[in-house]
Amino acid sequence: MNALPKVMAPVLTPFLEDLSPDFDLFVGFCRWLESQGAGLAVFGTNSEANSLTVEERLELLSHAIEGGIDPSRLVPGTGACAIGDAVRLTRAAVQAKCAGVLMLPPFYYKQVSEDGLFGSFAEVIERVGEQGLQILLYHIPQVSGVAISPGLIERLRKRYPRIVVGMKDSSGDMNYTKAAILRFPGFKVYAGSDALLLGTLRLGGVGCISATANVNPAAIVKLREDWQKDDAERRQEAMARLRKIFEGLPMISALKAAVAHHGKCARFAQVRPPLMKLNEAQAGELTARLAQEGFAMPGLEAELAPA
Amino acid sequence: MNALPKVMAPVLTPFLEDLSPDFDLFVGFCRWLESQGAGLAVFGTNSEANSLTVEERLELLSHAIEGGIDPSRLVPGTGACAIGDAVRLTRAAVQAKCAGVLMLPPFYYKQVSEDGLFGSFAEVIERVGEQGLQILLYHIPQVSGVAISPGLIERLRKRYPRIVVGMKDSSGDMNYTKAAILRFPGFKVYAGSDALLLGTLRLGGVGCISATANVNPAAIVKLREDWQKDDAERRQEAMARLRKIFEGLPMISALKAAVAHHGKCARFAQVRPPLMKLNEAQAGELTARLAQEGFAMPGLEAELAPA
Repeated sequence: MNALPKVMAPVLTPFLEDLSPDFDLFVGFCRWLESQGAGLAVFGTNSEANSLTVEERLELLSHAIEGGIDPSRLVPGTGACAIGDAVRLTRAAVQAKCAGVLMLPPFYYKQVSEDGLFGSFAEVIERVGEQGLQILLYHIPQVSGVAISPGLIERLRKRYPRIVVGMKDSSGDMNYTKAAILRFPGFKVYAGSDALLLGTLRLGGVGCISATANVNPAAIVKLREDWQKDDAERRQEAMARLRKIFEGLPMISALKAAVAHHGKCARFAQVRPPLMKLNEAQAGELTARLAQEGFAMPGLEAELAPA
Repeated sequence: MNALPKVMAPVLTPFLEDLSPDFDLFVGFCRWLESQGAGLAVFGTNSEANSLTVEERLELLSHAIEGGIDPSRLVPGTGACAIGDAVRLTRAAVQAKCAGVLMLPPFYYKQVSEDGLFGSFAEVIERVGEQGLQILLYHIPQVSGVAISPGLIERLRKRYPRIVVGMKDSSGDMNYTKAAILRFPGFKVYAGSDALLLGTLRLGGVGCISATANVNPAAIVKLREDWQKDDAERRQEAMARLRKIFEGLPMISALKAAVAHHGKCARFAQVRPPLMKLNEAQAGELTARLAQEGFAMPGLEAELAPA
């Protein structure tokens, strides 16, 4: 059983101009994130994972591991609408010795019952049938439309105490975060935003899996390590200020634009529909505001350069 | 170019006890619906299509066609979150000479732009690259979380006038239905509920693709044919009354329970998580209320019986 990384980036997925995954750039970017101390939650919301086919995700995972990424730092997103897809993705992650998986509930049908969601997770776990599996449940109701309720967590923990080990709470609702931490001792709760990292740690949470860990990983990792030191508040405020710059724009496109600019790799800005690249005005504003903050991504350019 | 059926059932997908698709029962049920005069919108919301993998959908489609279902009566759902999946499903439908396809927008990311949705549909259409393709856009914002706006319809119609031929409006909002019919002459608008069939036809709509067409197809087809006759109101009211019985319960599970009961085929009631079968009380209530209405599904038992 691997220890799960405490700070993870939902790794951006680079595309070629024809919209196919850019495997080389993906591995280079993973390598940079790893070098900054971040764990790799590949195939999360910010990875445009739900715009990828199952086959594309399996191929990206293979490339990362063949490219030398340490599987114990990988926590792929493997939730899907269809049980068969979630099983395939989850099994591949376990077989590749990933630290764990981040699992969305099936997200097409809305207002489904707790019994139905329990049945869905249980079916995936039973079919994968691997004792080494560690699942973080993925609570992001504002996007998935399907919440992970405390009652569901309780039932899954009771039935699969060693498998359902934690949750990413992307609701932004600290009351929910707090309730989950207090009610389920030992349950590993991750903030869905680095702006809530310090607050989540103070409540007894574990860390964060945050969009902006794609661009600001070292600072987030550092706060996770030093959160009990005197300057933690100041560090948290600086992180939140940086994050606000991205939140004012379409988040995924803005993160990709920042990587493209600071990695001197224009094609990294490509997104898949239904997302759209930043327009010129947005990209210009982003670059200017980041410059004001003295923002940098040291070492990135070298990792994104052609071999 | 095939004429699209005017009344279609989003065909229920039967499962074996291990939750794999029951191909024989699927073909038998398709055959029964066809015999009742309904078109077959296989892989719609009520088909639990988003709980099926792409491979399962392709295999079900092959079975239907090999089982003798007339492809000109088939309008498979082919929308998906990932462009690659939508392309595979759509191409298979065209190559099988289906009348058309019903296409959800990519539905994971919310609050995406009109440009992004246009880009997504355009990408699928261009990649499929088949002149014979006819698409009905699928507007069901309360489930998908992603609306098909009038502006999007306008742009798609302008660019692909022979391909983007119509829409299924499952919003239940007759103002939206009316606006779409008036604004886009020749655009084929289908009600998402047979309870709105007469109203939609009077506005200039084409027909309906309705959950309850799985259990009540002949009456719906008859109203579509005779909608200008004197007894149309009475027929519409009877259909709406029957539909209400199902709407009071989890709809898909209730439809499957009714088919199981009236087809004397208990295993038809099986659903995939996250849906749940009706419990005994619900199933008993459904059966009793349907009996009060004198409800029957003539000829169904023979089609569902083992060959």
